[in-house]
Amino acid sequence: MSRPTPLSGFPEWLPAGRVVEQHVLDVLRRTFELHGYVGIETRAVEPLDQLLRKGETSKEVYVLRRLQEDPARAEADRSGSLGLHFDLTVPFARYVLENAGHLAFPFKRYQIQKVWRGERPQDGRFREFVQADIDVVGLGELPYHYEVEIPLVMAEAFAALAGVGMPPVQVLVNNRKVVEGFASGLGLTDVDGVLRAVDKLDKVGPAGVTALLATEAGADAAQAAAVLELAAVRGGDLDVIDRVQALAHRHGAENELLAQGLEELAALVGAAAQRAPGVVLADLRIARGLDYYTGSVYETVLVGHENLGSICSGGRYDALAADGATTYPGVGLSVGVTRLVSRLLSAGLVRATRSVPSAVLVAVSTEQDRAASEAIAAALRARGIPVEVAPSAAKFGKQIRHADRRGIPFVWFPGAVDADGVRAPGQVKDIRSGEQADADPGVWSPSDEDRWPRAVPAAYAEGAPTP
Amino acid sequence: MSRPTPLSGFPEWLPAGRVVEQHVLDVLRRTFELHGYVGIETRAVEPLDQLLRKGETSKEVYVLRRLQEDPARAEADRSGSLGLHFDLTVPFARYVLENAGHLAFPFKRYQIQKVWRGERPQDGRFREFVQADIDVVGLGELPYHYEVEIPLVMAEAFAALAGVGMPPVQVLVNNRKVVEGFASGLGLTDVDGVLRAVDKLDKVGPAGVTALLATEAGADAAQAAAVLELAAVRGGDLDVIDRVQALAHRHGAENELLAQGLEELAALVGAAAQRAPGVVLADLRIARGLDYYTGSVYETVLVGHENLGSICSGGRYDALAADGATTYPGVGLSVGVTRLVSRLLSAGLVRATRSVPSAVLVAVSTEQDRAASEAIAAALRARGIPVEVAPSAAKFGKQIRHADRRGIPFVWFPGAVDADGVRAPGQVKDIRSGEQADADPGVWSPSDEDRWPRAVPAAYAEGAPTP
Repeated sequence: MSRPTPLSGFPEWLPAGRVVEQHVLDVLRRTFELHGYVGIETRAVEPLDQLLRKGETSKEVYVLRRLQEDPARAEADRSGSLGLHFDLTVPFARYVLENAGHLAFPFKRYQIQKVWRGERPQDGRFREFVQADIDVVGLGELPYHYEVEIPLVMAEAFAALAGVGMPPVQVLVNNRKVVEGFASGLGLTDVDGVLRAVDKLDKVGPAGVTALLATEAGADAAQAAAVLELAAVRGGDLDVIDRVQALAHRHGAENELLAQGLEELAALVGAAAQRAPGVVLADLRIARGLDYYTGSVYETVLVGHENLGSICSGGRYDALAADGATTYPGVGLSVGVTRLVSRLLSAGLVRATRSVPSAVLVAVSTEQDRAASEAIAAALRARGIPVEVAPSAAKFGKQIRHADRRGIPFVWFPGAVDADGVRAPGQVKDIRSGEQADADPGVWSPSDEDRWPRAVPAAYAEGAPTP
Repeated sequence: MSRPTPLSGFPEWLPAGRVVEQHVLDVLRRTFELHGYVGIETRAVEPLDQLLRKGETSKEVYVLRRLQEDPARAEADRSGSLGLHFDLTVPFARYVLENAGHLAFPFKRYQIQKVWRGERPQDGRFREFVQADIDVVGLGELPYHYEVEIPLVMAEAFAALAGVGMPPVQVLVNNRKVVEGFASGLGLTDVDGVLRAVDKLDKVGPAGVTALLATEAGADAAQAAAVLELAAVRGGDLDVIDRVQALAHRHGAENELLAQGLEELAALVGAAAQRAPGVVLADLRIARGLDYYTGSVYETVLVGHENLGSICSGGRYDALAADGATTYPGVGLSVGVTRLVSRLLSAGLVRATRSVPSAVLVAVSTEQDRAASEAIAAALRARGIPVEVAPSAAKFGKQIRHADRRGIPFVWFPGAVDADGVRAPGQVKDIRSGEQADADPGVWSPSDEDRWPRAVPAAYAEGAPTP
C-alpha cells in the first residue's frame, strides 16, 4: 500500500491537535452540563425526505446505499433511502417528536456530533465536521428568557476557552420582530425581500442594498435610507434600543411588533451587559437566518478572525418541530467546533503541552524485571496518574529520549535488587530540569499542571508574555 | 409531520440511557489514558477500494454519493468513491501510514467512534454502533509484552464498570502459533482448514468437526481426535500450558512454533493470573480471527450473557499496515460499546440516578425577580455544581414537581426581599427527605454522590442488596 493522502474537506488531527480539540469539547460539555443541558446523541442518518424538507440544502446531502443494493432501485425508492445529517437541528426535531412522551419539557439538550455536507471544501468549510449544539424546546410555549440564556451559556464556554489561547468572541444578536416591525412600519410588506437585501450589505455596499431594496422589496429612496439607518445600529448596551426607537419615531414606523421586539432585545442586551460584559452586541444588520428564525438570531465572530465567518449561530424558532396536535417552539445555538479548532491550530493560537496522556514513563532495567516496572505503573495509575512503561529494556539514555520525544515530563527508574534480594527505592527524574530523587509510587505525584496533557496558549509556550 | 418511528438497527437512547452510555465511554477513555493511550479520531469515510481490501465485508459497506451526483457516473468510478468505515482498524492503519513521519513508535492509541455496517439488524447487531478500540503499533517490530498489556487494560476498564452493575467478563485468549504449531506437528498442513473446522465446534459438535477436519483439512481420525483434544483445553493458570505440552508430547506434535506459541501464551496467562485474577482464560477452541491474526487472539464474554457474543475482540497482526519500505505490526482490542450498553439497559442491569445533569433547581419567586435566581445559579456553578433555573414563576409546588420529574434532588428558594430592600437568606430543600434549611450559594454543596448524575446498579436502585 502506498502512502495515502488526506481527503480534502475531511480534516483529521495529529495527536497534539486532538488534545486541543478534546479540550474544547470537554469545556463545552462541562459548561452545558453545569447549566443543566442533557447530553443526547442521535443516529447519523435520517430518511432523505426529512433531510430535504427545507429544500435549499438538497445538494449538500450525502445519500447512503449498501454496496450490494441495486442503484436503480434505490434511486426509484428515494423516499425510503437514508442520508447523513447535515446539521443537528433536523435530527433533534425528529428525536423530540419521536420521544415526546418520554421527555420532560422545557427540554434542554446538548448534542456534540459530526455532520456531513457535500460542499466544495474551502478555508473553514468542511465536508465532515463537528458541531456542538444547545437547544431548549418547549411544549406549546417557550418563555423568552431562554433566548437570553442560550447566548450567555455559550459566552461562558468561550470565556473558559480564553485561558488556553482562544481569542475573545463577539456574539452579535438581532431580532426578527424588530426588523419586521420596523419594515412594516415603513410600509414595506415584503419583509423577506428586505432581509435578503440587508444580508448583502457587506457584499454590495449601501448603494447596492438601496437598489436591491427597490427591486426586491419595492422600497422607495426614503424607505431604503431608513432601512440602512436601522442596519447601522450596533452596540452593547441599552442605548441601542433608544436609538432604534428614535429612528422609528422619526420615520413614523412605530408599532406593536417593533415594540415587542425591542422589549425582547432590551432584555437580552441588558442581561448580557451584566453577566458577560462586552461580549454580546446588538447588531441590526444581522439578517442571515431571519427568514426562518422568528425571534432572536445570533452570530458569533472570533475577534481578529472575522474572515472565518460565524463560529456559533442560531436563533429562535416558533416551531422547531410540530406534529398534528402540538407545536414545539425552540431556541438554540450551534458551535462549529471543527472550524474553530482548525483556526486555533492553523493560526498557532493554542498548542498541547504534550502529545500523549502519560505524565510518567517507567523505565525497564531488564526484560526479566519488567514486572517490577509494571507494578510501579499500576501503583501510580491507582492514584490517577497516567503512566506508560518503556517498550524495551534499552539503555536508560534511549528510554529517556523515548519520553522526551513524546513530551513525557518524568522518567521513573525502578530500584535495583541487591544480592540479598532487597530492592532499593526507585528514583524519579524530571527530564526538563534534570532533577532526580528517591520516590515512592504510593506517595509521589506530579504537579496538577503536569498530570494530564493540557491545551495552552501557543504564544505562551514560545516564551512570549502571558496574555 | 406525523410521529416518526425508530429505524431498525440505528439505536438511540433516551436521556437516562445516554447517562449510562456516557459513563461507560468516560470509564473507557480514562482507563485508556491512564495507560498512556493517545486519543485520535479519524474521518468517517474511507475510499471504497481501501474498505474492500479484505473482500469478505463488501456487502456490509455503505457507499456515499452526493444527492446531485450522477449515480451512473459514480458507479463507473467506484475506486474514487467513498464508503463509511465498518470498523476502526482499517482507518487506523491508513492513519498510521499517512502520518508515520509525525508519530512516535511504538504508537499506543485509543479511538472511540461510530461505525456502520449494512447488515440485517438483530439482537446485539446494529447498522450503526460505537466501538472503542485500543491498539499498539510498532515500526518494523513490536515486542510480545504488548499482547499481554492490551487485554489487561481492557480487564481494568471492565472491572471499573463492575461498580455500576456490569456483570463480570471472561477474556478468552488463544494463540495462532499454538494451534498452527500443533496442527503442523500432527502433519496437517492446511492450518486455515483446521481453524475453520474448530470454529464450528459450537454449531456442529465434535462429530461434525471431525467430518469437517477430514473434508476441509484432510485429517484422519487420529489427527481429528488430537485437534479436538486441544480445543477442549481451557483454564486460567499455567496448568493449561502443561496440558497442551503433554498433549503435543503424546501425539508427537512438538516443534519450535508450538513451543514459541506456548511461551507467549504462558506469559499472558501468568501475568493475567497476577494482575487480573480470574478474568483471563486460555481457551484453545477460540479460532475466530485466527485466520488473519498472527499471534494472540482475544474474545470477551459477559458472564451470564454469553448469548450476546463477544463484546470485545481482537488480536495481533504482524502487518497491521505496510508501505513499500516498512511493516507496522500491531495488536489491538475493540469493545462493542453499543452492544454492551444496549444489554446493560435492556436487561435492567444499570440505570442512571437521574436524567438531567442538574443537582439543583433554583426556584423563581416572580418573573421580575428571576435575576436573583440566576445569580444564585451562577454562584453554585462557579463552584462546579450543575444547576438549572425554573422555567417559570409558577407556584412552588409546581416548581418542585418540575424537579421531581427529572430526579433533581434539591430545590433552592431565593430569600424574599423585605420592605427595606434587604434579602432574607435562601433555603435549600432536599425533595427526597423534605429537609429544608437556610443556605449560602457560596458555601453549600451537595454530596459527591448527588453532584452529578451517575450510573448505578439497577437492582440496587430497587432496594435489593448491593452486590
